[in-house]
Amino acid sequence: MLAPSTNSIQELREQFLAQLSSHFREREPLGLYDPINYILQIGGKRIRPVLALLSGKIFGDDDLSQTMSVALAVEVFHNFTLLHDDIMDDSPIRRGQPTVHERWDVNTGILSGDLMLIQAYQHLASCPNVAAFPAMLAAFNRVATGVCEGQQYDVDFESRDDVTIEEYLQMIELKTAVLLGGALEIGALAAGASQQDADHLYAFGRLTGLAFQLQDDLLDTFGESAATGKLTGNDIIRNKKTFLFLHALDLIDQDERIELTRLFTTSPINPANKIARVTAIMEKAGIPAAVAELRDKYQAEAYVHLNAIGGSGQWKKVLGLLTESLLGRES
Amino acid sequence: MLAPSTNSIQELREQFLAQLSSHFREREPLGLYDPINYILQIGGKRIRPVLALLSGKIFGDDDLSQTMSVALAVEVFHNFTLLHDDIMDDSPIRRGQPTVHERWDVNTGILSGDLMLIQAYQHLASCPNVAAFPAMLAAFNRVATGVCEGQQYDVDFESRDDVTIEEYLQMIELKTAVLLGGALEIGALAAGASQQDADHLYAFGRLTGLAFQLQDDLLDTFGESAATGKLTGNDIIRNKKTFLFLHALDLIDQDERIELTRLFTTSPINPANKIARVTAIMEKAGIPAAVAELRDKYQAEAYVHLNAIGGSGQWKKVLGLLTESLLGRES
Repeated sequence: MLAPSTNSIQELREQFLAQLSSHFREREPLGLYDPINYILQIGGKRIRPVLALLSGKIFGDDDLSQTMSVALAVEVFHNFTLLHDDIMDDSPIRRGQPTVHERWDVNTGILSGDLMLIQAYQHLASCPNVAAFPAMLAAFNRVATGVCEGQQYDVDFESRDDVTIEEYLQMIELKTAVLLGGALEIGALAAGASQQDADHLYAFGRLTGLAFQLQDDLLDTFGESAATGKLTGNDIIRNKKTFLFLHALDLIDQDERIELTRLFTTSPINPANKIARVTAIMEKAGIPAAVAELRDKYQAEAYVHLNAIGGSGQWKKVLGLLTESLLGRES
Repeated sequence: MLAPSTNSIQELREQFLAQLSSHFREREPLGLYDPINYILQIGGKRIRPVLALLSGKIFGDDDLSQTMSVALAVEVFHNFTLLHDDIMDDSPIRRGQPTVHERWDVNTGILSGDLMLIQAYQHLASCPNVAAFPAMLAAFNRVATGVCEGQQYDVDFESRDDVTIEEYLQMIELKTAVLLGGALEIGALAAGASQQDADHLYAFGRLTGLAFQLQDDLLDTFGESAATGKLTGNDIIRNKKTFLFLHALDLIDQDERIELTRLFTTSPINPANKIARVTAIMEKAGIPAAVAELRDKYQAEAYVHLNAIGGSGQWKKVLGLLTESLLGRES
């Protein structure tokens, strides 16, 4: 790849997928390795590995020889969390395909997931830049711990009705944002960046992740289903207490608070009326604008960090383009 | 600790336990951290961490500043495998206490176990000898992968009736022996030993682990329950196809083979007759002597490797004492 172009993101994704598939092999015991190949093949947008590779490009790892191992590590780790989360949530479908514990069984899912976590470290340890190992390992361990904590908070919050906005934001930060930040940080460290520059990229990814999660919540309730590919109102149907719900409670009067809280205990067969009433309450409270404002605040803070680092300006621009496209605001 | 003495093993165990308990703390989310403290506190013989520390002592890490992190890593990893194995086997009791998924629930067990695996790497990465990180990580990843493969083979073998002796020995090697070898190998690397010396210690631990597993199987069927603290005949009651069963099939005639195979499909309420008949067939076939012979062969091979390394002769002697005591043959 020469200078970055509009195709750069797609090209990085393809380079990553070529590397990923070189790691698939039929290996005994099949009951352990087949599910790993399966979940890694069924797709996803490969955002985290592309972020790691972009970090590499920004800090001069032109042939990606240092950062490809980080890209593999974060993608395998991410899929490990999906595999185990699907067991915990008893989800039958992931990306349109049966989940591992559905296609095989729960025990297979547990053990294959365990091995994926080990393989994530194995990829990390295959980075040629051994001088960066202590910093890379410290970052990876910190991020992986955060993701587990985020999942536990998510589980805990389902049975609590006193979750604060601060707690909710901390949960989505841990569950989603820290791994996006970590992919950038660890990629940068592998490419030889200073810890200070890597920290700035981590902050950029973390804040972008928070903005992305708020945008996702916003689109779920107020987006067009054609644009998102999702059923609009899915969070309302599932009584999911997102930022929209929690912030609305702060802004509405006592009667509406009682009504909204009550609506979030119901599961009507035809949810159209429930969705209409909830969105009306939220719109009247100004939730879409409030969410957009917080999202933009995070995104603006993110760019302060991106602008603070050295490295290739052209590749920093590509990273900016990727995050804009994740937020559905490509120009 | 000065020169090694008869108390050395107990002193190493106490030093390890003091370090382990310094890592217990009440931390949010409690649903994630409490089960980890729980399983790490309920005990066990702490063989693996003591092996790692003995490696350190052999290679001059007198104050254990390099190898203590390895001791913590292997013990946390071992308890992670117990936690997830107990879920897969649906075992209600571990070391006389409710298992984590019994005391909490399966999801808690999965997620806490995942975090323990991450914490094992975190301990490893806290070793001050960063120059040894590439070798330590490679060894740890190889060993951890082997343990997962061993567990998968163990699960697979339960539904197969054509398991060969070679396959059985490979399974117990992966499931039990490689982690004993790994504790010694990685401890040695942390203490600055050469890869060659570390490999010899790995081989010593692996072969000792195989001998130990055979001894364990032998005692389960032919030992006194007072000596083992276990119900004699437990493997027979559970129709567990250990080396004793598989090797007996090779040595007995067709009628006995049919009888033994049939007995291993029954689960009588009062198993006394079944146990008596199985042990009689095995004794007639010379199984106790054959198992003892293979056990001693492994142990003799193990000592070839121990004698091949440099390091402190006095501490090598303590390591020998520990393995003799594991085999129940202290003088």
